[in-house]
Amino acid sequence: MTTNQSSVERPALKNDRYLRALLKQPVDMTPVWMMRQAGRYLPEYKATRAEAGDFMSLCKNAELACEVTLQPLRRFPLDAAILFSDILTIPDAMGLGLYFEAGEGPRFSNPVQSKADVDKIGLPDPEGELQYVMNAVRTIRRELKGDVPLIGFSGSPWTLATYMVEGGSSKAFTKIKKMAFAEPATLHLLLEKLADAVTDYLNAQIDAGAQSVMIFDTWGGVLSPRDYKTFSLQYMARIVEGLKRESEGRRVPVTLFTKNGGMWLEAIADTGCDAVGLDWTIDIADAKARVGDKVALQGNMDPSMLYAPPARIEQEVATILAGFGEGSGHVFNLGHGIHLDVAPEHAGVFVDAVHQLSRQYHHR
Amino acid sequence: MTTNQSSVERPALKNDRYLRALLKQPVDMTPVWMMRQAGRYLPEYKATRAEAGDFMSLCKNAELACEVTLQPLRRFPLDAAILFSDILTIPDAMGLGLYFEAGEGPRFSNPVQSKADVDKIGLPDPEGELQYVMNAVRTIRRELKGDVPLIGFSGSPWTLATYMVEGGSSKAFTKIKKMAFAEPATLHLLLEKLADAVTDYLNAQIDAGAQSVMIFDTWGGVLSPRDYKTFSLQYMARIVEGLKRESEGRRVPVTLFTKNGGMWLEAIADTGCDAVGLDWTIDIADAKARVGDKVALQGNMDPSMLYAPPARIEQEVATILAGFGEGSGHVFNLGHGIHLDVAPEHAGVFVDAVHQLSRQYHHR
Repeated sequence: MTTNQSSVERPALKNDRYLRALLKQPVDMTPVWMMRQAGRYLPEYKATRAEAGDFMSLCKNAELACEVTLQPLRRFPLDAAILFSDILTIPDAMGLGLYFEAGEGPRFSNPVQSKADVDKIGLPDPEGELQYVMNAVRTIRRELKGDVPLIGFSGSPWTLATYMVEGGSSKAFTKIKKMAFAEPATLHLLLEKLADAVTDYLNAQIDAGAQSVMIFDTWGGVLSPRDYKTFSLQYMARIVEGLKRESEGRRVPVTLFTKNGGMWLEAIADTGCDAVGLDWTIDIADAKARVGDKVALQGNMDPSMLYAPPARIEQEVATILAGFGEGSGHVFNLGHGIHLDVAPEHAGVFVDAVHQLSRQYHHR
Repeated sequence: MTTNQSSVERPALKNDRYLRALLKQPVDMTPVWMMRQAGRYLPEYKATRAEAGDFMSLCKNAELACEVTLQPLRRFPLDAAILFSDILTIPDAMGLGLYFEAGEGPRFSNPVQSKADVDKIGLPDPEGELQYVMNAVRTIRRELKGDVPLIGFSGSPWTLATYMVEGGSSKAFTKIKKMAFAEPATLHLLLEKLADAVTDYLNAQIDAGAQSVMIFDTWGGVLSPRDYKTFSLQYMARIVEGLKRESEGRRVPVTLFTKNGGMWLEAIADTGCDAVGLDWTIDIADAKARVGDKVALQGNMDPSMLYAPPARIEQEVATILAGFGEGSGHVFNLGHGIHLDVAPEHAGVFVDAVHQLSRQYHHR
């Protein structure tokens, strides 16, 4: 046992509802967290962000990253914390030069345009170039004091590759698709490197104290079913195979989330992951009927529902809870990140509604 | 019979493969056309567009709109022509003030922000404010000389409403969703008006000579399954019910296309439409197994596949044809509009591949 694993650094978990639900073990109520729960809809986040300077400076400062991670937990009885970081830390560590242009989203100074560019890419050291992420994990884990579990995460290889090849955000993904269809070997080489890098990165997060990990495949849904399996899913499956699945004597559950992946749930569940994230375009009852015997489900309220009056939010929560029905295996969440202009009070209504209205479905 | 319906204006159809396939009648080969086949990937389009001035001036000039409609047919043996127009003609005729900002897409000077705004909206007269569209239909129909059928089209009420409420294109559709969840009665009032307007508009296109119509629900896929039915599908169903289904002694087939609607095919097919458009995120074999007994299918190659070398394009066409398999009921198309930087020669490879490779599946 290293110092990092001492009982001071890693106190026993007080609320393990989230981890239990991912493993379909009985719970007293349905656990809930929100994608991007640490974010711009919270005034206290904006204050810390201003203190840090730019976005990546916030990610790279372990104390401040910890602070924003904990902020939503002070407001709402959330059942998990998620590492505050960006999905593009790996490409940045690979030397692509991540920067953010106001209103433009992330950009890379050195996008990947050829096989020569891919050949140059090396595997980042999680305790080297990416040590700032592991430091944040260690700091957050210590400061959580065992209140709730900490989720680590990464972007999927395909999703990271879209930014690396497009040079930033994209609407039609024409550059990476050109590569996929005209030069597939080059793209596969890139995806292999990314799969290795993500595996190392998530395993390092688990070593540093992450109690569960999630892979965000934000852009897998822009592919055809055949291309999704070829260019996205097979690399996520490879990562799932390479992950440490136990740490501190407890299983480390893995959640895969492909936005707009509702048609491919069976294939996603077959990777060996513990849970599948759902966006709001699928009925959770259908999803449970299709893959509920194999995996837990996370989701899936439309984040825009938080614009509605409290009674409408509660009604939507009730509908989704009823859709999932009896028993464990459901982690409630939004189907995507919370919008920046949502009133924090509405997020509170949402979290409370999940807890209160879900008790009837659990008989622990 | 009016002058518009004389045999000079509307000569007999030489190639009816597209109409027959939509009605699942035997064909010699699979018909094919491309969404946005008249467009910026063609140098001759850019020349005519430059002559017209801006985009809406091109739409409003019947002779030039006809010219660009026919351009792709001179290059490729396409089985249908589609009216050159914009999906936002109806909101523009409703007084919202459509304009295009360079690189920004469509914008409205007077977006819909309240019930008072919706109350003010009247039903446009298809032979009044929108007569320029009907003039284009009549001109194109005459100039087609019966070579192939002419497709008329409209945006869906939901899709039109997204632009009207957001004030233009959107990424997260937060304004219209605020309205949907916080003020649903206002949105329903708007959608009802739009459903009436679209019905009138498409019926007028049919009277003017359109031989088939298509409704583009570009943004239905951003809704949850429940909200899709409530805010998009029910209004498309209402339009389908109100359409003239026969003209010039022939059935006028209706195609509904919801981008990212692959999970809701059964519900779409239940509207009474003749065909369902598919984007590339669904396997056409699955789609056929689910709704192929009820409707024809249109689609569904990823438009980015046209960046690939010819042999790869042919391989993809072969895969999709094999997925649909034997018999009629398939109109080949891209799963969305052709990209502006595709080489026209690749579009030619695509069209020829569909014709040549599909013969084996038809035994007429």
